[in-house]
Amino acid sequence: MKLKINLNADVAEGYGRWTMGNDKDIINEINSANIACGKHAGDENIMSNVILLCNESNVDIGVHPGFSDIEGFGRRRLNLSEKNIENLIAYQTGALLGIASTLNSKVTHMKPHGALNNMACEDLNLSKAIVRGFKAIDKKLILLAPTNSELIKAGDYYGIACVEEGFADRAYMSDGNLSSRSLEGSLITDVQKAVQQAIDIANGEKIETLDGKKIHVPAKSICIHGDKQEALDQAKSIKQGLIDNGFDLVKLAELDS
Amino acid sequence: MKLKINLNADVAEGYGRWTMGNDKDIINEINSANIACGKHAGDENIMSNVILLCNESNVDIGVHPGFSDIEGFGRRRLNLSEKNIENLIAYQTGALLGIASTLNSKVTHMKPHGALNNMACEDLNLSKAIVRGFKAIDKKLILLAPTNSELIKAGDYYGIACVEEGFADRAYMSDGNLSSRSLEGSLITDVQKAVQQAIDIANGEKIETLDGKKIHVPAKSICIHGDKQEALDQAKSIKQGLIDNGFDLVKLAELDS
Amino acid sequence: MKLKINLNADVAEGYGRWTMGNDKDIINEINSANIACGKHAGDENIMSNVILLCNESNVDIGVHPGFSDIEGFGRRRLNLSEKNIENLIAYQTGALLGIASTLNSKVTHMKPHGALNNMACEDLNLSKAIVRGFKAIDKKLILLAPTNSELIKAGDYYGIACVEEGFADRAYMSDGNLSSRSLEGSLITDVQKAVQQAIDIANGEKIETLDGKKIHVPAKSICIHGDKQEALDQAKSIKQGLIDNGFDLVKLAELDS
Amino acid sequence: MKLKINLNADVAEGYGRWTMGNDKDIINEINSANIACGKHAGDENIMSNVILLCNESNVDIGVHPGFSDIEGFGRRRLNLSEKNIENLIAYQTGALLGIASTLNSKVTHMKPHGALNNMACEDLNLSKAIVRGFKAIDKKLILLAPTNSELIKAGDYYGIACVEEGFADRAYMSDGNLSSRSLEGSLITDVQKAVQQAIDIANGEKIETLDGKKIHVPAKSICIHGDKQEALDQAKSIKQGLIDNGFDLVKLAELDS
Repeated sequence: MKLKINLNADVAEGYGRWTMGNDKDIINEINSANIACGKHAGDENIMSNVILLCNESNVDIGVHPGFSDIEGFGRRRLNLSEKNIENLIAYQTGALLGIASTLNSKVTHMKPHGALNNMACEDLNLSKAIVRGFKAIDKKLILLAPTNSELIKAGDYYGIACVEEGFADRAYMSDGNLSSRSLEGSLITDVQKAVQQAIDIANGEKIETLDGKKIHVPAKSICIHGDKQEALDQAKSIKQGLIDNGFDLVKLAELDS
Repeated sequence: MKLKINLNADVAEGYGRWTMGNDKDIINEINSANIACGKHAGDENIMSNVILLCNESNVDIGVHPGFSDIEGFGRRRLNLSEKNIENLIAYQTGALLGIASTLNSKVTHMKPHGALNNMACEDLNLSKAIVRGFKAIDKKLILLAPTNSELIKAGDYYGIACVEEGFADRAYMSDGNLSSRSLEGSLITDVQKAVQQAIDIANGEKIETLDGKKIHVPAKSICIHGDKQEALDQAKSIKQGLIDNGFDLVKLAELDS
Repeated sequence: MKLKINLNADVAEGYGRWTMGNDKDIINEINSANIACGKHAGDENIMSNVILLCNESNVDIGVHPGFSDIEGFGRRRLNLSEKNIENLIAYQTGALLGIASTLNSKVTHMKPHGALNNMACEDLNLSKAIVRGFKAIDKKLILLAPTNSELIKAGDYYGIACVEEGFADRAYMSDGNLSSRSLEGSLITDVQKAVQQAIDIANGEKIETLDGKKIHVPAKSICIHGDKQEALDQAKSIKQGLIDNGFDLVKLAELDS
Repeated sequence: MKLKINLNADVAEGYGRWTMGNDKDIINEINSANIACGKHAGDENIMSNVILLCNESNVDIGVHPGFSDIEGFGRRRLNLSEKNIENLIAYQTGALLGIASTLNSKVTHMKPHGALNNMACEDLNLSKAIVRGFKAIDKKLILLAPTNSELIKAGDYYGIACVEEGFADRAYMSDGNLSSRSLEGSLITDVQKAVQQAIDIANGEKIETLDGKKIHVPAKSICIHGDKQEALDQAKSIKQGLIDNGFDLVKLAELDS
């Protein structure tokens, strides 16, 4: 029997007249799309258009909420109260469900964006606030979050189905965290190396870390990127590499638990 | 048996650190609150706080979506495609339902805001786009719209329950429309006159227009305002006047059809 | 003696993390750059970076103010009072002068953006408000505006130096206005045709209009575009065509009056 | 000879249709107004209207730049590069000078707002970036900043005239810093106590700190507030108290150095 793996990507990250990457191209490569919801990127029209693209490609859609920070693309850390975080998530989750309803589409998962995701991975209380923000709306949304993060713990705490995600194009440190983008070698641009890391993660094999150790990265979903042509080409190679190595690319809900 | 009437008001119209009127005070006077949803005013935290106030006062909550125009408070006309209007409504309707879910609250109605409302009242296709924007999410939301407007026709067209609203503090013209704010006498500041207009509308009696005629304004809901102290005082008088004249102040769903 | 002509383009139209076109490439082709000032596009960091590029290429910089409408990219018509228009221009003109000061750069001209430009071309009072908005700050800024527009009249009224601009890649109507973008043939995508139109305008020869007449388009500056690769390639051809036909490409202040 | 002291306040902190405090009232009480410049509050129309009020009351105007964060009112800390900080200041300084030009008014000083001010007070490099942001535009702008702050050091470093400001309505700690707003007693609401603290600071007498010591707060300008009625009433008492105690209330440029 084939091993199952999921590919996800962040999409709908344009704003007004601006675009970010080519949503149509990356959607062709993935199983699950994380849709920006208007606070850090995306707007109601982009959201609607991207859901249409996902429907055409049989790709699942998820909430990808971020800080309310268009100028900073949600990459700047903001210190908000837990109640405000809960509201921030509920607002964006509801908004995406609203747009999806007009297209008769179902929202399947959620994955926080940028600085909000980074802060949540380190902070259980923040992560719990995020989970409270969407579980009141739909407790069946699958939480997609980095392996071993506080987000996963918060999802478990509230009985939410969680899927751990790994990265093929980012180097890890021996503590299991992604290496800082400021470190040389943090971004894996060698296509064969990225493909191999995806296969190793999918197989449950150890991968080599930037600081020279070998670690397991338990993950059932691999996050890929398509914002630039090289990233898109690499994403295609990762997908093909997984297929060639016998993996079954599936939706989050179809993964073995 | 007592005649029934509903009082509604626009609330949650602050933004970030700014406030607009005193939501707590006006919520005490009404049956149905129209909640700004973050595009022209309001933000996720204000929305949440105002829903709590409504819950405490047993006041129903509704979507009050506007153009995406914080600087212009949604009072500037924008020409958008019908699809964009539909998305605009779906986004805000979903967002409010999201926030309401975290407080275990039910959204009962919708009423467009400002320039969007004004444009819709004159344009059936725009009104239909608005209705499509929320009916896919919840077709049981009651559409609250001016008497005889194209919005009411669009609601009827799609089989949506509609309630017509009238104004106690604004003068009408003989064609049944509100008089322009630029005309002297358009705003009724004489409290007794406003109270009488509310009672006449509620009783189905004719009211005097600014251009000196007498017309019927069929309406089951009266919109009142509380953004300034005088408006709030007048709103209280209108409510008391209706009670003193034997009306039963009820929620939109409890009105006689 | 060589005939003189100026090439201008709109730049700095990204926002936050988003880009629009490739500023570096188009700046290589022009004499005068119109810099978005943060209200419809552009932000203080993009403005600063683009001024640096202009300095490196010996390209003059101008104010390119638009409506305060990031979501609509300044392409949506807003009805503002004349005083508000004056403030809108003064704010953006001052902001660009501020950024330019930190780089020891001189601002030479101004050209309104998008819907603001379109509305001004038809409305003398709006155009006068625009001129008042910058002349109090620097009355030596050259006003760059479409041939025969009300903007030019407003500049003349206040004694501001004006340069008329024409388009090589847009078809004209026999009344001297640009044809509507909704008409087929409005956008000239045939490179040789665009080059010829630029040369004809520069030579003072008549050009053929979309409705089949021949008209003069008196203009000393040609607006070119570089937002897409084809537009950039066409812009390069226009520049080369003008050079090959003996024109001297100069700054606005160096044009013969 | 009378001792001189200056009173300053933050104004123009509304946005679009929202107001913050009553600018007209507080402007009557002060010598120098710090004007929000559109990034955290204020917009071009509010700025213009407030400058008119200042002109009528013979009150000097200054730049009051903040982080680009309308939703957070500039009170949330953002980590920006020094170059971005410099651009942020230059943009807002230029914008205010632009608006002031249309009213033939002179800008006299600058004081950073909110989180930007707080961060700068602790960080010399950030403070230097702020000073570079305005000195290229007008090196004669007086820097108004808290006593002993890094901002003052940065001003001194670049040879900018500085005036130290103190607070009458906030308790100090024995290290010379303001006590945290989260501490009880941090806000001085007892009017007589606030008036006495203003007089003591103005006289160069020691004041009592929240942690029970006595310290000098060398300051030639006292910051007062008028956002609520009680604050405004207290501000009036502080002004009257200073007058009654023989102080000469003057503009920043008229203070003894």
